[in-house]
Amino acid sequence: MSETLKVIFNVSKMPELEEPYLICGLPGSGYVGKLAVEHLVHELNAKLLADIYSYSFPPQVIIRNDGTADLMKNSMYYWKGNGKPDILMLTGDAQPSTSEAEYMLVDEILGLANKFNVKTVFTLAAYITGVFVDKPKVYATATDADLLKEFQSQGMLKMDGGSITGMNGLIIGIAKLKGMRGMCLLGETSGYVVDAKASQAVLQSLLDMIGVQVDMKNLEKRAKDTEMLIQTIEQQMRRRSAPEEQLGKQPSKDVGYIS
Amino acid sequence: MSETLKVIFNVSKMPELEEPYLICGLPGSGYVGKLAVEHLVHELNAKLLADIYSYSFPPQVIIRNDGTADLMKNSMYYWKGNGKPDILMLTGDAQPSTSEAEYMLVDEILGLANKFNVKTVFTLAAYITGVFVDKPKVYATATDADLLKEFQSQGMLKMDGGSITGMNGLIIGIAKLKGMRGMCLLGETSGYVVDAKASQAVLQSLLDMIGVQVDMKNLEKRAKDTEMLIQTIEQQMRRRSAPEEQLGKQPSKDVGYIS
Amino acid sequence: MSETLKVIFNVSKMPELEEPYLICGLPGSGYVGKLAVEHLVHELNAKLLADIYSYSFPPQVIIRNDGTADLMKNSMYYWKGNGKPDILMLTGDAQPSTSEAEYMLVDEILGLANKFNVKTVFTLAAYITGVFVDKPKVYATATDADLLKEFQSQGMLKMDGGSITGMNGLIIGIAKLKGMRGMCLLGETSGYVVDAKASQAVLQSLLDMIGVQVDMKNLEKRAKDTEMLIQTIEQQMRRRSAPEEQLGKQPSKDVGYIS
Amino acid sequence: MSETLKVIFNVSKMPELEEPYLICGLPGSGYVGKLAVEHLVHELNAKLLADIYSYSFPPQVIIRNDGTADLMKNSMYYWKGNGKPDILMLTGDAQPSTSEAEYMLVDEILGLANKFNVKTVFTLAAYITGVFVDKPKVYATATDADLLKEFQSQGMLKMDGGSITGMNGLIIGIAKLKGMRGMCLLGETSGYVVDAKASQAVLQSLLDMIGVQVDMKNLEKRAKDTEMLIQTIEQQMRRRSAPEEQLGKQPSKDVGYIS
Repeated sequence: MSETLKVIFNVSKMPELEEPYLICGLPGSGYVGKLAVEHLVHELNAKLLADIYSYSFPPQVIIRNDGTADLMKNSMYYWKGNGKPDILMLTGDAQPSTSEAEYMLVDEILGLANKFNVKTVFTLAAYITGVFVDKPKVYATATDADLLKEFQSQGMLKMDGGSITGMNGLIIGIAKLKGMRGMCLLGETSGYVVDAKASQAVLQSLLDMIGVQVDMKNLEKRAKDTEMLIQTIEQQMRRRSAPEEQLGKQPSKDVGYIS
Repeated sequence: MSETLKVIFNVSKMPELEEPYLICGLPGSGYVGKLAVEHLVHELNAKLLADIYSYSFPPQVIIRNDGTADLMKNSMYYWKGNGKPDILMLTGDAQPSTSEAEYMLVDEILGLANKFNVKTVFTLAAYITGVFVDKPKVYATATDADLLKEFQSQGMLKMDGGSITGMNGLIIGIAKLKGMRGMCLLGETSGYVVDAKASQAVLQSLLDMIGVQVDMKNLEKRAKDTEMLIQTIEQQMRRRSAPEEQLGKQPSKDVGYIS
Repeated sequence: MSETLKVIFNVSKMPELEEPYLICGLPGSGYVGKLAVEHLVHELNAKLLADIYSYSFPPQVIIRNDGTADLMKNSMYYWKGNGKPDILMLTGDAQPSTSEAEYMLVDEILGLANKFNVKTVFTLAAYITGVFVDKPKVYATATDADLLKEFQSQGMLKMDGGSITGMNGLIIGIAKLKGMRGMCLLGETSGYVVDAKASQAVLQSLLDMIGVQVDMKNLEKRAKDTEMLIQTIEQQMRRRSAPEEQLGKQPSKDVGYIS
Repeated sequence: MSETLKVIFNVSKMPELEEPYLICGLPGSGYVGKLAVEHLVHELNAKLLADIYSYSFPPQVIIRNDGTADLMKNSMYYWKGNGKPDILMLTGDAQPSTSEAEYMLVDEILGLANKFNVKTVFTLAAYITGVFVDKPKVYATATDADLLKEFQSQGMLKMDGGSITGMNGLIIGIAKLKGMRGMCLLGETSGYVVDAKASQAVLQSLLDMIGVQVDMKNLEKRAKDTEMLIQTIEQQMRRRSAPEEQLGKQPSKDVGYIS
C-alpha cells in the first residue's frame, strides 16, 4: 500500500479537531457528490489538509487554467466549527480504476479519518432515474438503525433494497468495519448532466442534519464550470488506450492561436 | 493477503468441532449452491462463526430490507451434530471479481477449515443444460477415487471430462493440495432461473451421504425470494462502470413514495 | 510470488542431471509445442519431477477420464540420457491469464532450471500462416548469434523481424537475462487445428540438433486425442464469466446415462 | 517492485554527470517522442547506461534484424556535454500494459534520475489533431509557472486545459512530487503515421531551450524505418490473446525462402 499511495500533508502541524464529521464527494454519475463537497469547501473557506496520490488513479496529468500540469489526486480539507461541529471534507479528480484499488484507497482514507477520531462518515451520491425533475428527492441508507431513524425525521427517503457501487458505498461499508457510523445520501438525478439541483438537495439535507449553513447561490455557476471540465476529462479516459494521445481545450488566446 | 481480506469472528470462543464437513454454496449459475446452503443453515439453525470481507469482492454495499447497508461478504456457519456429523457451512453475497482473487480467497477459507481439522469438503454447483426438467439429475466429481465410489453407490452420475470453473472447482482442487478430500455435486439446471429443484436435488444427495436430514418445504419459497434479490444485484454488477450509480428496488411504501 | 505459486516435487531426492537441456511446450495456437513435448515425455518414458500450480492459471479444475478432478497445472519431467544429453521437459494445462503472471511464472521456472545448471533452453511454438501445408517448414530465433548459426546448418529458417508473444517468447528472453541461451523453434501451421505435422516437424528438428531420437508414429493419434480435450477446455474458458457454469463431455456410459 | 522490474547497467562505473537533463521519448501516438529521442541518442553518439526490463511490458520478445531475439525493454543513455549541459535520455520498445504499472515504472525511472541529481525532466509527446500539416506547432505544459514562462519565450504554445495520458504525463507529474521540474512538449500531428516532422519540431524546440544542436537530416529516413518496425509490433499486440501466435516479416532471403 505504502508503495502505491502517497499522502502529502499540506500542514506543518496537524489541526486539533473534535470528533469531526467526514463528508465525502467524489466524481461519479452527475457529479452530484463532488460538486456538493467542492461547494462546501469553498463556502466554508476550508483549509487543505492533505493531497492523496494513488497508483490506481487514471494515469494522466491534468492541465490547470494557468497552463501548469498536476497529477490526478484526491484532497482532504478541514474546517473548525467553533461552536458548530468540526468537519473533514474529501473530494478529488478521480476514483481508482480497479475495484481492488477502491477498497485499498478507502482503507487508507478511513485510517486517516481515524487519526482525527471521526465517528460518523457521510458520502454524497447520485440516485439515477433517467428523468429530469425540478425538485430532486433525497434518498438515504446508513450502517446502523439509529442513524437511519435520524435522517427519516429529516424528510429523507429510506431505501430498502438495491446496492451502492463504488467508493460512496465502500466508504460507509468499511467505516462500519472500523467501528464508525456511515451514511450515504443520494440525490435524485437524471444521470445525464452535472446536476446542481441534485447536488444542492443532498448538501442541504446533510447540513440540516449537522446544523451548519452555507450560501447556495454559486452552486449553479459551479455546476456549469464543472460540466466543461468533466467533458474534457471523460473524453481522455475513453481514449486512454492510446498512451501519448493529447486532447483537450484549445490553447489559450493569449498565445495568439485559435483553432 | 492479510491486507486485502478481513475475517471477523462472531464468536468469543471458537467452537469445538470434531472433523466437521465443510459444505460450500456460493452464488453462481442458477444459485443452486447458494440456495441449498442458505436453506441448510436456516433449517439446522446453524450459528454464525465468521464474516469474511475481501478487497476482491465487487465494490458495493448491499441495502438490506431494514434500510441498513452492508459490505458484500461471505459467511461461515457451524452446526454441532450431537451424534450426527459436525458441519461448517460457507455461503455469501459474491465470488471474487478476478481469477487470482478466487485462488487467494479459497486458500484463506481452507486455511480456516484446517483449524477445525476438516477432512472432507463439498461444493454444491450447477450443471447447466439449457433445458427445464422436472427431476434434475445430480452429477459429481471428486479429488480421489474412493470418494468417487461412495457417491456412485448413492445414485449420482459420474463425469469423465470437462471442467468446473470458479470457486466451486477451486475449493476442491486446492483442498486436495492441502491434504483434504474434495467433492463437487452439480445439480442439473437450465441456468436461466434460481432453481429450487436443482438445489433440493444436490442438497438431498449430499445429506443422504452424510446422514443428516432437514425439512425441504421452504426451499421453493426461498428460491422465489432469492430470485428477486439476485435480479437487483445483477443489474448493479452489469452497470458497475459508472461508479456512483444507484439502482435497486423502489423506496419502501412507509415513506409515502411510489414510483 | 511464493504466495501465488506452489511447486510440489514428486521426487524424494532431486535427480542428478548434467547440464540438461530444458525443452518447453505449452498450450497455444495449434498446440504445436504442447503436443510435441507431451509426445517426447511419453516416448522417453520421462519421470515426473514437479507439478507447478499458479494463482494465475484459469480458475478451474479439469475432470480426468476416471472422474477425478485436478487443478490446472504445469509439470516438469526429466530424462537421464546415459550417453545422450540429459533433458528437462515442461508442459501443462494452461498458460497464465495475465501478462504480468506470465513473466512471473517464467521467472520461477527458470529459477528451477538454474538449480539443475541448465545452459540452453528451447521453446516449441507455432508459426501461423492461415494455410494448410503438407510439409511444414521450421523457423527459428535464438538469443545469441552462435546458436543461430548452429540451427541454420540444420535447415531451419531464420526470422529477421516480428516478435514471439506469450511464454514461448518470454522463456527465451528471460533465459538470456539469467545467463542461459534460449532458442525458439516455430512450426509452420494453419492455426486452425491441433497440428501433428507441425508438431513433428519442430520436434524432429530439435532432436536432430541435440542428437536424440524417438518414434514418431503415435504423434498423429495423440493429436486427435488432444483435439478433443482442447475443444472442451476452450469452451470453458470462453464462458468463464459465469462462475459456476459446468460444461464438458457427457457422463460416462457406465452410469447408464446418455443425453 | 524489485520483483517485477529489473535494471541492468551497461557500465562498470557510473558516469559522473552534472545535474543532467532527463529527456524521455517513449512509443505512443505518431511515435513523435520515441523517434525524437532515438535520433538524439544517435546524433549525440550517446552511451548506453542501463536497460530496464519490466513484468508490465507486453509479454513478447522482439526479433532483431540479425535474427536474434530480445525481451521488450526501455533503455537509458547518457551524454556528457563538455561545456554543453549533460543529458540522460530514455526511450524504449513499449510502455507498460496497465495503468498501475505505468506509475510504478515512472517511480523507478525517476529514482534512477535522482541518483544523477536530475533537476529538470522533459517528455516529448504528440498533440493529435487528425489533420496533416506542413509546419507542426509545438505545445507545452510544465509543472511550475517559471518553466512555463521560459518556454513561452521560445515560441511554444501554452495549453490551458485538457490532460496528458500515459507515461509522458506521469513522468512530469511524479517528477513534481519528487521535487524536480517537469515539462512536456507536444508536437502537432495527425496521429495516423510515424511523423518525422512533428518529431523534429519538438526536438528542435527542446534543443533550442537547452542550447544543444544536432543534425536533423536523417530524421526523415529514421521515421520510415520506424514506421515499418512499428507496424509489425502493433499487429502483434492486437493479437496478443493467442499466446503462441507468431507474425512478422518474412524470413530473410538468405535462407532461400520467399513467401
